[in-house]
Amino acid sequence: MSSSIFSERIARLRPSVVREILQAAQAPGVISFAGGLPAPEWLPPLGELAVPAAYGQYGPTPGEPALRRAVSEYLARIGLECPAERVLILSGSQQGIDLTAKLFVDLGTAVVTESPTYLAALQVLDLFGARVHAVPLEAQGIEPDALGRALSESRARLCYLNPTFQNPTGALYDADRRDAVARVLEQSGVPLFEDDPYRELAFDGPAPAPIASRLRSTPWIYQGSFSKVFLPGIRLGYLACSAELWEPLERLKQASDLHSSRVGQWLALSLLQAPDRDERIARLRAAYRAKRDAFERELALHFADLAEWRTPSGGLFFWLQLRQPRSLVELLPAALARGVAFVPGESFFPGGGGSGTLRLNFSNASESEMVEGLARLAALFRE
Amino acid sequence: MSSSIFSERIARLRPSVVREILQAAQAPGVISFAGGLPAPEWLPPLGELAVPAAYGQYGPTPGEPALRRAVSEYLARIGLECPAERVLILSGSQQGIDLTAKLFVDLGTAVVTESPTYLAALQVLDLFGARVHAVPLEAQGIEPDALGRALSESRARLCYLNPTFQNPTGALYDADRRDAVARVLEQSGVPLFEDDPYRELAFDGPAPAPIASRLRSTPWIYQGSFSKVFLPGIRLGYLACSAELWEPLERLKQASDLHSSRVGQWLALSLLQAPDRDERIARLRAAYRAKRDAFERELALHFADLAEWRTPSGGLFFWLQLRQPRSLVELLPAALARGVAFVPGESFFPGGGGSGTLRLNFSNASESEMVEGLARLAALFRE
Repeated sequence: MSSSIFSERIARLRPSVVREILQAAQAPGVISFAGGLPAPEWLPPLGELAVPAAYGQYGPTPGEPALRRAVSEYLARIGLECPAERVLILSGSQQGIDLTAKLFVDLGTAVVTESPTYLAALQVLDLFGARVHAVPLEAQGIEPDALGRALSESRARLCYLNPTFQNPTGALYDADRRDAVARVLEQSGVPLFEDDPYRELAFDGPAPAPIASRLRSTPWIYQGSFSKVFLPGIRLGYLACSAELWEPLERLKQASDLHSSRVGQWLALSLLQAPDRDERIARLRAAYRAKRDAFERELALHFADLAEWRTPSGGLFFWLQLRQPRSLVELLPAALARGVAFVPGESFFPGGGGSGTLRLNFSNASESEMVEGLARLAALFRE
Repeated sequence: MSSSIFSERIARLRPSVVREILQAAQAPGVISFAGGLPAPEWLPPLGELAVPAAYGQYGPTPGEPALRRAVSEYLARIGLECPAERVLILSGSQQGIDLTAKLFVDLGTAVVTESPTYLAALQVLDLFGARVHAVPLEAQGIEPDALGRALSESRARLCYLNPTFQNPTGALYDADRRDAVARVLEQSGVPLFEDDPYRELAFDGPAPAPIASRLRSTPWIYQGSFSKVFLPGIRLGYLACSAELWEPLERLKQASDLHSSRVGQWLALSLLQAPDRDERIARLRAAYRAKRDAFERELALHFADLAEWRTPSGGLFFWLQLRQPRSLVELLPAALARGVAFVPGESFFPGGGGSGTLRLNFSNASESEMVEGLARLAALFRE
């Protein structure tokens, strides 16, 4: 037992670097490439929400039936068959990570992830005491044989993947890689947790169907978010899962917050069912594609000799590797002092490493801020 | 390690009896005394919410600054001094239970509670592996000497109390009892988790200041809810805490759901700052007092020879002890078949017991439903 007044897990409770940087980036005049914030000019107006009075009352734990049906129909369109009865509305997809960790992770449980991987997932896995085994991520996803070895050697009980415009790298698993990864998971029987918040932000054609849709007998959780194409401020996401996982996940949700905001769910449903929904998302994609291209033009102008990167075909981030590795954690305060925020890449690597990598968000800053911010950042790196 | 695919905690994951009964109680025609639902006719209208567009974006983890200030000011009015910097906005007070369990409870950690106590807190404590030591609850609260013995004999690391119109019994700790309990906690140094959602629903004068306000050096968490006098459907609550608990609680919140719905927070703030707020709560209190009195008239008519109870001076529940103890869990299906829902008391007792006790909600049913539902229930008990 810990000698502190806290539980032993609190010794493993690290702050989220991104949230800390975001806070620093809110100072007036700071140009932020740090968070994964949608473009403010593309948030749907909240306007006058005529929310029915009944939505003020307590509601069902798994979510509003109409919203669960709408999510189930959406999932069928992207190739994942899951009945509405196994759709759980979440208070943001961060909650899905918390519930999944509660479901699978004891102190010492082995979990396989990509390297680098989403740092807020790492934060939760660490908190629950997971031993994280990271498999290097390539542009087309992790290498199936390497995944197979990691799963068996670590005796993994969960595999966490972010296969569509991955955070932080933007990597996209193609259809063949998804099939191959699914086969490895089937052979090992290790449950898959597929985190897929960026799927709709595809700039060069739709992403292949989820890995979860390619599994037959292996348990799976697939989660999506309403934060990326709708509204982060309503803090809603959803998960779908294979049949054996439903009952404990619903109970864990109940024990965590009873149910998600019904006012938010009503709003999410209105947005999903709006007649101009597809058109709005198509316009959003086009706007973000233009932002990505503008960002890359500036990168090419200032960073061509400083760093390497791949053009992301979706999502919200550029991932840079400096040609001369150095610790960007140490450089961050100087950047903030000059009014530019970014996320050093080290925090995304479960086993350490990542020196000289950084994540740059291109969706939130305006075009003039991009120009100014990247020029300032390049000047700092040159010093 | 568990032989199941799940973490070992899942073997301790029980459903919430109340949520299951609530689901059964939603069948058409069922009169429900089961949940703690506000009266539908007293929910503030959601109407046309002109939520500012900026609230659609991601927000700060601890909550909206204006809402945290408003909570801090409210707490000062009820006698608890806590700066806004130590107010954390929660996605419902169920989340506060989850965060507190994460903060303090390892497998085998001793936690002292009242007996009976709030069952959704028990559900979470069990999930995290607490050893719960329950101290019998009297009308004025738990007996201080018994509390002191339980804290030291169990080597408790947390004490969970619900001192104001307790769920399920309606018990109210008076000022002397609060002082005495605070002294015992000070002597033991065991952190207090004071769960106080019903404070504003006081029918016979305001409740004494929180126990937390009477502590000097012992760590404490005090939590309240926006669900009881405002809107359950926005799923918002808050906690305040002593200084040493702030940092880990804020990080645990971040790891759980980043932050609570901003749309909901905007609405909660609008309701808190409405010019007619105090008047509206006074009318709500008067309406609930009248409902309590009407409920008790029907109880006296049908249950005087069947059961004993105390008139609750606040909150949402009557707590009945049948004169002839019997398992009400077994009787519940028959009651539901006759279209009446209630909560058997057994589930509120951490160590077992409670045969022949039941919790009846008086806020949600209309007066004609009360009359009909209590008559049906009494007829069933007489058979």
